[in-house]
Amino acid sequence: MTYANRQIDRAGAATIAGLAECGVATVHEAMGRRGLMSSKMRPIQQDQTIAGSAITVSAAPGDNWMIHVALELAQPGDVLVVAPFSPSDAGYFGDLMAESAQARGIAGLVIDAGVRDLRDLRRMGFAVWSTAVCAWGTVKETPGWVNVPVQCAGAIVNPGDVVVADDDGVVIVPREMADPVLAQSRARIEAEADKRRALRDGALSMDLYDLRSRLAAKGFTYR
Amino acid sequence: MTYANRQIDRAGAATIAGLAECGVATVHEAMGRRGLMSSKMRPIQQDQTIAGSAITVSAAPGDNWMIHVALELAQPGDVLVVAPFSPSDAGYFGDLMAESAQARGIAGLVIDAGVRDLRDLRRMGFAVWSTAVCAWGTVKETPGWVNVPVQCAGAIVNPGDVVVADDDGVVIVPREMADPVLAQSRARIEAEADKRRALRDGALSMDLYDLRSRLAAKGFTYR
Amino acid sequence: MTYANRQIDRAGAATIAGLAECGVATVHEAMGRRGLMSSKMRPIQQDQTIAGSAITVSAAPGDNWMIHVALELAQPGDVLVVAPFSPSDAGYFGDLMAESAQARGIAGLVIDAGVRDLRDLRRMGFAVWSTAVCAWGTVKETPGWVNVPVQCAGAIVNPGDVVVADDDGVVIVPREMADPVLAQSRARIEAEADKRRALRDGALSMDLYDLRSRLAAKGFTYR
Amino acid sequence: MTYANRQIDRAGAATIAGLAECGVATVHEAMGRRGLMSSKMRPIQQDQTIAGSAITVSAAPGDNWMIHVALELAQPGDVLVVAPFSPSDAGYFGDLMAESAQARGIAGLVIDAGVRDLRDLRRMGFAVWSTAVCAWGTVKETPGWVNVPVQCAGAIVNPGDVVVADDDGVVIVPREMADPVLAQSRARIEAEADKRRALRDGALSMDLYDLRSRLAAKGFTYR
Amino acid sequence: MTYANRQIDRAGAATIAGLAECGVATVHEAMGRRGLMSSKMRPIQQDQTIAGSAITVSAAPGDNWMIHVALELAQPGDVLVVAPFSPSDAGYFGDLMAESAQARGIAGLVIDAGVRDLRDLRRMGFAVWSTAVCAWGTVKETPGWVNVPVQCAGAIVNPGDVVVADDDGVVIVPREMADPVLAQSRARIEAEADKRRALRDGALSMDLYDLRSRLAAKGFTYR
Amino acid sequence: MTYANRQIDRAGAATIAGLAECGVATVHEAMGRRGLMSSKMRPIQQDQTIAGSAITVSAAPGDNWMIHVALELAQPGDVLVVAPFSPSDAGYFGDLMAESAQARGIAGLVIDAGVRDLRDLRRMGFAVWSTAVCAWGTVKETPGWVNVPVQCAGAIVNPGDVVVADDDGVVIVPREMADPVLAQSRARIEAEADKRRALRDGALSMDLYDLRSRLAAKGFTYR
Repeated sequence: MTYANRQIDRAGAATIAGLAECGVATVHEAMGRRGLMSSKMRPIQQDQTIAGSAITVSAAPGDNWMIHVALELAQPGDVLVVAPFSPSDAGYFGDLMAESAQARGIAGLVIDAGVRDLRDLRRMGFAVWSTAVCAWGTVKETPGWVNVPVQCAGAIVNPGDVVVADDDGVVIVPREMADPVLAQSRARIEAEADKRRALRDGALSMDLYDLRSRLAAKGFTYR
Repeated sequence: MTYANRQIDRAGAATIAGLAECGVATVHEAMGRRGLMSSKMRPIQQDQTIAGSAITVSAAPGDNWMIHVALELAQPGDVLVVAPFSPSDAGYFGDLMAESAQARGIAGLVIDAGVRDLRDLRRMGFAVWSTAVCAWGTVKETPGWVNVPVQCAGAIVNPGDVVVADDDGVVIVPREMADPVLAQSRARIEAEADKRRALRDGALSMDLYDLRSRLAAKGFTYR
Repeated sequence: MTYANRQIDRAGAATIAGLAECGVATVHEAMGRRGLMSSKMRPIQQDQTIAGSAITVSAAPGDNWMIHVALELAQPGDVLVVAPFSPSDAGYFGDLMAESAQARGIAGLVIDAGVRDLRDLRRMGFAVWSTAVCAWGTVKETPGWVNVPVQCAGAIVNPGDVVVADDDGVVIVPREMADPVLAQSRARIEAEADKRRALRDGALSMDLYDLRSRLAAKGFTYR
Repeated sequence: MTYANRQIDRAGAATIAGLAECGVATVHEAMGRRGLMSSKMRPIQQDQTIAGSAITVSAAPGDNWMIHVALELAQPGDVLVVAPFSPSDAGYFGDLMAESAQARGIAGLVIDAGVRDLRDLRRMGFAVWSTAVCAWGTVKETPGWVNVPVQCAGAIVNPGDVVVADDDGVVIVPREMADPVLAQSRARIEAEADKRRALRDGALSMDLYDLRSRLAAKGFTYR
Repeated sequence: MTYANRQIDRAGAATIAGLAECGVATVHEAMGRRGLMSSKMRPIQQDQTIAGSAITVSAAPGDNWMIHVALELAQPGDVLVVAPFSPSDAGYFGDLMAESAQARGIAGLVIDAGVRDLRDLRRMGFAVWSTAVCAWGTVKETPGWVNVPVQCAGAIVNPGDVVVADDDGVVIVPREMADPVLAQSRARIEAEADKRRALRDGALSMDLYDLRSRLAAKGFTYR
Repeated sequence: MTYANRQIDRAGAATIAGLAECGVATVHEAMGRRGLMSSKMRPIQQDQTIAGSAITVSAAPGDNWMIHVALELAQPGDVLVVAPFSPSDAGYFGDLMAESAQARGIAGLVIDAGVRDLRDLRRMGFAVWSTAVCAWGTVKETPGWVNVPVQCAGAIVNPGDVVVADDDGVVIVPREMADPVLAQSRARIEAEADKRRALRDGALSMDLYDLRSRLAAKGFTYR
């Protein structure tokens, strides 16, 4: 009953690279405010933004066997998305796996559980987002699933969806929405450029966004 | 029923600057151990200490409209204190608002909710203390209150109270207590200088604080 | 009824130094996956690994009196392990205590509660693992115990046990197991060296660990 | 610096009784959705609704001395509102205090901390809302404040405010708003009576609240 | 972009009734230990077991508009499964909605957020599982989705999946697996009947499950 | 390396029965406020008090194998104390195990993890304290330890220690302290009887405990 899907569809490389440039907050807004993982999903490093196609892993609690399967199926630029099917903060991923992932060109790891060997991971520059840091070891006893739909830190992830991750957290863009979301993200960034300049020069957002009349209409007053 | 108070009283600039120099732990002790926000209120940066007069914001959950109102009412050196009136970890504040806040000389933000665009906020050097990092977007639909008493991460904050924030967290000094608290904080620091020197030279706090006889009196023994 | 034990047995200095070199994740595995503290025990600094003999402190909630007792009983290289006997995130330890600890050659602090004066602690390079950062002050009213068995963040710690702490967290090695655990840790590191090289060169862990046949035997399939 | 205010103003008895009849959810709505305590504030019993004037207690963590002061100052029908000034889940209140509170006609207890002797409290029918159940004992060492503004489980409570508590939680009605809030609560209940009847008879809220056109206007479709 | 799917496929009524008889723990085991919601999903009542086809609701945080849409689309015996797309503990569901749901024959509610009017819900006997109890009001401002895949308290739920809920929590059975899972659940119950009798008569599970030799083979000893 | 100790020493039956009569809060006070488990350890039933000798179980996360070993080693009146050596909320214990435990006269279960089949457990009247309710299944793959010192929900438990549990939580009395603690508990109850009567008759604790002068001495005033 357990299995891996070898073939997944991916979004185009340029689209993925474009989404990385836009960043999590912008992409999340452009998607109509969906797809964001919970705020407990945090990076172990600072100042790194990645995007890539999701290789999804549905793992038994405290068992990292399926990550080994995923490492073989991933292509350069992919992102591993690991979700135990019952909550666990064991350390599923450490320096040896990171060596392998980096050797195979994997862009990073998003895991709704723990990682370990933090110092090594940071030294290697392998990008990780996790919900815990914990040295607790895992076993290879119970198979799970690779490249099936998973829920990870509150977001549904299908294999091949685009994962965008930065210091703000992680957002998932369904593969078939990747192009329109990129377009909307870029439009948003452009629209913000003028506002940013105006605000930097001391303009008030109350004027810029025309908020005064709407406020008054809702009965808001100044004293 | 919703409104903003335009005018608030502030402590003197020299007092505020003095409190910043003393730091959170000392000020909290000097106040008789009151006014500290919960330990879930954490800085997004390291090594930054600020103090300023509180512009308080009571916001609807997931709605950042009132921060725009506050940005206009704040004066250089003020600190925004934002508390949703029901818990939320949405990202109320990001890079555009930080541009505006910085342009207007605002000293920093303390928010019992989430912030986003972390990388930009850190790059700009805009000081933030928050209870979450989250890209989740907010709306401008429901007015709230600006410059009314709020409770933020467990502390009551009145507009014009002095906010002191550093790597240890955030403490609130009621405006009318600012001068005596500063005096007591400075006395405390002075009193600690000698002790620090003695401890650095290897003295034992058991002797320095004369703890041995009190311990024995409470029946404590060595084996 | 409250007391301190002056004399504790310690593991050998070379053993302790060896365990520090191995790091938390390796030592934890070598011990058969026991002794790890909970993932809420986090360092306040990055890139620091320590090991030392535990001076254990069982303290009243919000009361740091016993740490002063421990500072006198500790020897150079020891690690303070502090556990309130009821949960507390008060700031039991700050810059003055760190001055004293550093002057006496103490290797670091592990505390299931809060610390404060974070900026000073980091500047001084005094290594700390804690479950909270909080300026809340403590008192010296209620004696407790020093050098008795304690439970700290989920691990049982006996005085003289070896504490190993790094970016991954904290693991406790019972004193009488220190030598065999060091031997097993080193064996583990050696065994990993070849694997690391192979993985870095692009080998698959599926082959290296011979996982394919075991997977098939469990009914796992590829699609 | 610590003190109790003997005199507080109270809302009228009929108003208070009326608010109890309306219940927490209705009163909270009638107030414009303010004043609700956090969802971690839970009753220890089922099916009990109370309302009364708040006697507020600002207590040291793990110290219940001020509750004894409050027991003397309370009048029949009052509600004790206890908030430690730093988080604590110690058991501040047990059967002996409940005997005294009940003898003096106090309507109930709302506490942002722990209670104990649960079985006795339930047997006596003394109504309690707390954020923890914990036998941990408290001391009488550090004075605090009685009848000052406190923040309790996320709500600001002034002495004399009306506390309304039922199975849904606790809401605070500022004393001077008690009459208009009661009027609005009653209007709300009346308005709901017809709707309740219609819904019970199988009417759809989509029709009753006229939601179809507004939904379509926002671009919502059926497939 | 927001919409509701009117038509969903459902499992057979006999299958659904059969799954209710088996209960959550058995069904979860029969499914190979998948599909269980997190342990924070708790019933507001005791001793009630339900099963039904999922009408899924993906709602904006603090906005219950989509539940009104779902109430119209649900058929007798269905279960509402509500998941805000960002975490919220607001009270999405209260007595009026329960009147409507009960009038329309809906079997119960599973919600990854708050409910209110607890006393009324219990009195009416309308079965609810939620992650919070909270009176906080919701609005009808932002459309969402009805009958799309959602993630609810850690489980992925597709419209038409069978929801089984009892005192142990909630498990989701994918519609197409409902029949085989029922068969396996029943087989499991039958297999347990003999064991139950033997254990009640004092047999040891060590003998019944033949655990002694396996234990010894793993090096486990008695002292 | 894994093993069970067959023989443990127990306190006398009369002592154990006496401690049960005193209840958790009293025993905890009589012990000098030690030994209490965390407030997250909660009963699944109401109005039940038990006491018994601890059979301790140190189990692998998600693995209930050792409970089967413990069931054989326990004697009538004993209490199972189960602590996974890494946090887990899986459902380690359900109706079949309860049948066996009840058949063998075991007094109850205290577990720092989850239980399941709640309805059956309550129906059978088998007393349970746990930190979670969760149907998640466990395996029998990894041996652990039975009758060794464990830490359970923040308390250290040695085999043979007396476990006292009621609606307030769980407290552990070291076996060798059981008799003096019982004596002190009884003295405490006697001392409280008079106070209870006085308070019931309307006396003030301020007078009864002579709190006024001590308060004044600490500078507390009335306004």
